[in-house]
Amino acid sequence: MKRKLRYGMVGGSLDAFIGGVHRKAIALEETAELVAGCFSTNSEKNLKCGEFYNLSGDRIYSDYREMAEGEKNREDKIDFVSIVTPNSTHFEISKAFLEADIHVMCEKPLCFTVEEAKELSELAKDRNLFFGVMYTYSGYPMVKLAKQLVEDGEIGHILNVNAEYLQDWLIDQVGEDENTDTNLSIWRTDPKVSGISNCVGDIGTHIENTVAYITGLHPKKVLASLDYYGKELDLNANIIVEYENGVHGVYSSSQVCVGHLNGLVVRVFGTKGSIEWVQEDPNYLKVVRKGEPEQIYHRGTAYVGGRAAELNHIPAGHPEGLVFAIANHYRSFMGAICKKLEGSSISNKDLDFPSVLDGVEGVKFIHAAVGSSKEGNIWREL
Amino acid sequence: MKRKLRYGMVGGSLDAFIGGVHRKAIALEETAELVAGCFSTNSEKNLKCGEFYNLSGDRIYSDYREMAEGEKNREDKIDFVSIVTPNSTHFEISKAFLEADIHVMCEKPLCFTVEEAKELSELAKDRNLFFGVMYTYSGYPMVKLAKQLVEDGEIGHILNVNAEYLQDWLIDQVGEDENTDTNLSIWRTDPKVSGISNCVGDIGTHIENTVAYITGLHPKKVLASLDYYGKELDLNANIIVEYENGVHGVYSSSQVCVGHLNGLVVRVFGTKGSIEWVQEDPNYLKVVRKGEPEQIYHRGTAYVGGRAAELNHIPAGHPEGLVFAIANHYRSFMGAICKKLEGSSISNKDLDFPSVLDGVEGVKFIHAAVGSSKEGNIWREL
Amino acid sequence: MKRKLRYGMVGGSLDAFIGGVHRKAIALEETAELVAGCFSTNSEKNLKCGEFYNLSGDRIYSDYREMAEGEKNREDKIDFVSIVTPNSTHFEISKAFLEADIHVMCEKPLCFTVEEAKELSELAKDRNLFFGVMYTYSGYPMVKLAKQLVEDGEIGHILNVNAEYLQDWLIDQVGEDENTDTNLSIWRTDPKVSGISNCVGDIGTHIENTVAYITGLHPKKVLASLDYYGKELDLNANIIVEYENGVHGVYSSSQVCVGHLNGLVVRVFGTKGSIEWVQEDPNYLKVVRKGEPEQIYHRGTAYVGGRAAELNHIPAGHPEGLVFAIANHYRSFMGAICKKLEGSSISNKDLDFPSVLDGVEGVKFIHAAVGSSKEGNIWREL
Amino acid sequence: MKRKLRYGMVGGSLDAFIGGVHRKAIALEETAELVAGCFSTNSEKNLKCGEFYNLSGDRIYSDYREMAEGEKNREDKIDFVSIVTPNSTHFEISKAFLEADIHVMCEKPLCFTVEEAKELSELAKDRNLFFGVMYTYSGYPMVKLAKQLVEDGEIGHILNVNAEYLQDWLIDQVGEDENTDTNLSIWRTDPKVSGISNCVGDIGTHIENTVAYITGLHPKKVLASLDYYGKELDLNANIIVEYENGVHGVYSSSQVCVGHLNGLVVRVFGTKGSIEWVQEDPNYLKVVRKGEPEQIYHRGTAYVGGRAAELNHIPAGHPEGLVFAIANHYRSFMGAICKKLEGSSISNKDLDFPSVLDGVEGVKFIHAAVGSSKEGNIWREL
Repeated sequence: MKRKLRYGMVGGSLDAFIGGVHRKAIALEETAELVAGCFSTNSEKNLKCGEFYNLSGDRIYSDYREMAEGEKNREDKIDFVSIVTPNSTHFEISKAFLEADIHVMCEKPLCFTVEEAKELSELAKDRNLFFGVMYTYSGYPMVKLAKQLVEDGEIGHILNVNAEYLQDWLIDQVGEDENTDTNLSIWRTDPKVSGISNCVGDIGTHIENTVAYITGLHPKKVLASLDYYGKELDLNANIIVEYENGVHGVYSSSQVCVGHLNGLVVRVFGTKGSIEWVQEDPNYLKVVRKGEPEQIYHRGTAYVGGRAAELNHIPAGHPEGLVFAIANHYRSFMGAICKKLEGSSISNKDLDFPSVLDGVEGVKFIHAAVGSSKEGNIWREL
Repeated sequence: MKRKLRYGMVGGSLDAFIGGVHRKAIALEETAELVAGCFSTNSEKNLKCGEFYNLSGDRIYSDYREMAEGEKNREDKIDFVSIVTPNSTHFEISKAFLEADIHVMCEKPLCFTVEEAKELSELAKDRNLFFGVMYTYSGYPMVKLAKQLVEDGEIGHILNVNAEYLQDWLIDQVGEDENTDTNLSIWRTDPKVSGISNCVGDIGTHIENTVAYITGLHPKKVLASLDYYGKELDLNANIIVEYENGVHGVYSSSQVCVGHLNGLVVRVFGTKGSIEWVQEDPNYLKVVRKGEPEQIYHRGTAYVGGRAAELNHIPAGHPEGLVFAIANHYRSFMGAICKKLEGSSISNKDLDFPSVLDGVEGVKFIHAAVGSSKEGNIWREL
Repeated sequence: MKRKLRYGMVGGSLDAFIGGVHRKAIALEETAELVAGCFSTNSEKNLKCGEFYNLSGDRIYSDYREMAEGEKNREDKIDFVSIVTPNSTHFEISKAFLEADIHVMCEKPLCFTVEEAKELSELAKDRNLFFGVMYTYSGYPMVKLAKQLVEDGEIGHILNVNAEYLQDWLIDQVGEDENTDTNLSIWRTDPKVSGISNCVGDIGTHIENTVAYITGLHPKKVLASLDYYGKELDLNANIIVEYENGVHGVYSSSQVCVGHLNGLVVRVFGTKGSIEWVQEDPNYLKVVRKGEPEQIYHRGTAYVGGRAAELNHIPAGHPEGLVFAIANHYRSFMGAICKKLEGSSISNKDLDFPSVLDGVEGVKFIHAAVGSSKEGNIWREL
Repeated sequence: MKRKLRYGMVGGSLDAFIGGVHRKAIALEETAELVAGCFSTNSEKNLKCGEFYNLSGDRIYSDYREMAEGEKNREDKIDFVSIVTPNSTHFEISKAFLEADIHVMCEKPLCFTVEEAKELSELAKDRNLFFGVMYTYSGYPMVKLAKQLVEDGEIGHILNVNAEYLQDWLIDQVGEDENTDTNLSIWRTDPKVSGISNCVGDIGTHIENTVAYITGLHPKKVLASLDYYGKELDLNANIIVEYENGVHGVYSSSQVCVGHLNGLVVRVFGTKGSIEWVQEDPNYLKVVRKGEPEQIYHRGTAYVGGRAAELNHIPAGHPEGLVFAIANHYRSFMGAICKKLEGSSISNKDLDFPSVLDGVEGVKFIHAAVGSSKEGNIWREL
């Protein structure tokens, strides 16, 4: 492409966390520029953010519907929109931009209900638009290496999966000295904004997605035990899953495990070997082949090839982190858009970013887990 | 005590693994000597072992019943017997020695059925005998420190438990190049010798015991998913447990996780903090207090007090291993016997070794887990 | 500042490594834009890079002298220049921009000789310009925490320092199957481009700088043993240093240690405690206070305050890496420039970036180390 | 051998540390029994210890000379003596037993002067006696694996060595709140008992021995910087060494590094790979082959063969510690004695225990290091 892509953003005013991360990730790629936005329902914050990025005044929108409508009709319309708002608004905003024929990258979870999720998926398909859902962790090079090793048969047939995502940021919700003023936690623990689940919806779904990316296995049914500790939404969850092939896994997620920050750990065990990846130390992948010493692969080395090698930003031994994983997803997503704009053919490899289909699986997983737990810990199909 | 204790052993001929470990552990304590034994049903092996330890000929017994009977009537009878035979024989052998008024230390699991377990427990109580069951891991000093920190309220109220015991030594049972000749595995995977469970019975029960030791929590009910991979006995298990207080835990055990050897890991999460202990690196304990940096305690240091400090064999920084954990259990067990022989009063602290009551809990846990899994993954009371 | 800063770059065409990293780091800060450059002596590469960044044609310079001259006279002149060329050119390029009254950020090592270094230092001082030298590692938040703990007396008086920077990328230079075609290594091992030292100059100097940043201690004299393995420049070095206060340290650097990538490790030992930081896992800091358990601090947590807290880009548990450390240096450097442009007063804290004075120390260290080694491993003053 | 070996001990009363460890290590082997001793110059302690081990009264000696004389003339004389007294007495005691034609295992360092060391070495050779010196760490299986990998050429030609032994137990000697009453430290820091060096003599010499065992390389000369912090004997040391082949290494030892307990770490770097072993986690060996992922070998696994495999006491994944390393040395030492008593031929492999020749090297190393440091940090030949 001769020109840079143009993108817009919904949500993500200057004081928001995840919006800023998306912008920085896109900036690292150097192939797109922010030209439109509706950053906040607070008009002052919205304006301030737009001005910070030198947006022209008519593209600092006070309403996402106006933005979709406004951009739709411009010659220099945005090529894609990044949606970084709370969960409750993902559906309607995504729908508006799809209907304006604009590619979408949306934060996870995709939306509240399976029906909504399927509607978005259908809509994107019908309009031939790319719809990414930001399941961050599959953007890490060593997760891509894990996927490749599994696909190459390096660990044989999968026998079981053990994965977890442990945090502690909501510990004050359950303690003796319970702190009800933790602003940070307000929307996550509010079903009106967060949906039917807090813990499974926010981080359990990351386990599901990362395991599925690496192994190709989505749960067919789940047996879940969610802990609410007297709160309206879940704060802890243990979920036994069964995949299509009858193999089992166990997924534990929690927001009340003191000492764990963003402790996503995925372990996959096969007949010939095993892999283990730890998000907090993402530049390593532990691989053990049956009967051989444990191996630690380091990102960026000459012995790491394939997709994992294509996505290095800096040399081995100099750590990369989360923002680079997001940048990698944008690289694929934006690359696909470019190819489409150029009329080039698009291969599966070009689509190596989490899509609306992953989003649908995520919503199904959340609903099945909550249902299983509420109905007395029985198996629930997805 | 002026004299050393006298002990006998059933099982543990010279080529057996666990019997030798028991003898070495006792030797480290330097307070007991082996004087009688029935080491093997193979008379040659039996004799050879007895002679190696300079046993007098009349105390190398060809049958455990003869041994119980013979020792019972001697003036210099053994003070206790160590039973290190396969699972199927624990009940009858233990019973014989109890009936001969001899204290017992038996390998785990205690026996096949809950009824048998209770019978042994009653018998020991009636005869006022000590009955230890060798749940090894609570013998490690850092496990004792973990227990103490929980008791002292350092981690607050317990919110959840996440524990696992992963091995890979039976991986060849499930692989493409299945090896049916693995002699090592024969008795563990044979229900006639091993009982109704292989994986849960051999190592899942260690999770249950170690967690119970640290937290004081025994499962009230379990929801189990056991994987058989076409074999007669289980090789992998994921078990959600609920304790008396309504708190949940998840226990994963496996013999087919490539790269894991004796990977017992216990993590306990409370309202104020968490602890984590890893058997393969047993001289450390990770402790995190809410809002503070992660801490790594090292065995033997001045800041580690209590029982953990009493049981150091060598100074901090020089690693101790499994045999010392077993020695610690024997130290307590033999210490209690000495006190009894001396007529001293015996406190709870003197009984800091896993007892027949732990054995009963173990058998109940195994049966509940197998039952839950076989009946469609439903909750089963213990 | 109302407007963004304007910057230019010398070196760093699209296929160069470190130039791209500088640009990405600046982009993460979102406060400066690239408007001028002389990216390569290859005119095609130079033009391509300038066009990629939408530079106006008259600011894509074919020669750095032209650039300094051209920018000097513009009303919208660049506020600073980033110099990311090979070592041999740092002196003359830096001098040219200083003489054009433009602030400078230069890659390390600063230049070839101590005289040159001092000249640059004087020049920057005389013209009242900021002159940063990109000693990357002090940009990491956990290095800043280390510095603060030392300053706060948390580890008492310093007793000794043990630091290393081990790599293996030049191993093929010394092996049996020596590979003389490693293009990568050409300029580093060429004294005309690299100067009198390869290993000490490239990475040994990073040890010196990082230790000095944390402890405030610069070597007064060094006792060095450099290994050349038959090559023209050093590939391995062990250096005993003595600081002003008589305390000793040992610095080991190597480019031939198989298995080490960018293994900068700094350990500082004091009368009350110790700290340890590892560049490849930069989001942690190990701290041990005398008589207490080992502590692991995690970046971004509530218990980490001060400068380390001010420089977080993303929340705790989501790893940050090298590019963010560089971004942090630019944040300070650019912040100081802004304050100056605004006429605000500038405090020491505003100058928390490695300066030309660090660059001078680095050159002195390199010369002293090489001298000590060549003269028979005798003490050499800096 | 039909019978068990008979051994005696000098030093090691019941409250002594290292003597107890030697006895436990020998007990683990089950092939020797303690029959004579002179455990303390305090007659009460001496008697108490002898009685504890059921020694016959005439073999509880009040003087080591009497003991050597007494045992020499008995038909059932001891086969070997273990000497576990402070450094200052090693020479005379060892000499006495050698002259009584009794094999010796002595604690390190061997003695005070190189002349004494050579005299003992000559004496053992003349009398055809085994003389072991307890350099513990080469008894660990993973150290034996390291040696084997080096011998097999797995890491190519050695390029450099980086090793350290860091402790913190004497930190109170140098702090502001200096504690002069630390009884523990008294004899180590007293030149009359400890010799010319504390830190190098106690632990620096362990580095020298362990590196030499693994690599076959003894220093030809040393360049040492010892830190005394105002004390009579050294507490910290950085030593650059040069081996016969011109290769360099660096050895750091310290007793004032807060947070380090028995931190012996050996790293050997070659043209094809590297190895790293850490005493506090002794059941692992890190191996990196050029261009391949880092590998972690676990003790006791099927992929570990050779001597490392012969010396397993318990299965992989169940940690072994220091006492087993000492047991392994006794296994070799006692095995050699048995072969000699049986008249069997003795191969090099039978002599896989640290000998008086290692002891001589150790004393030479200590003297060279102290000399180099005192004379202004100049090279000193060994």
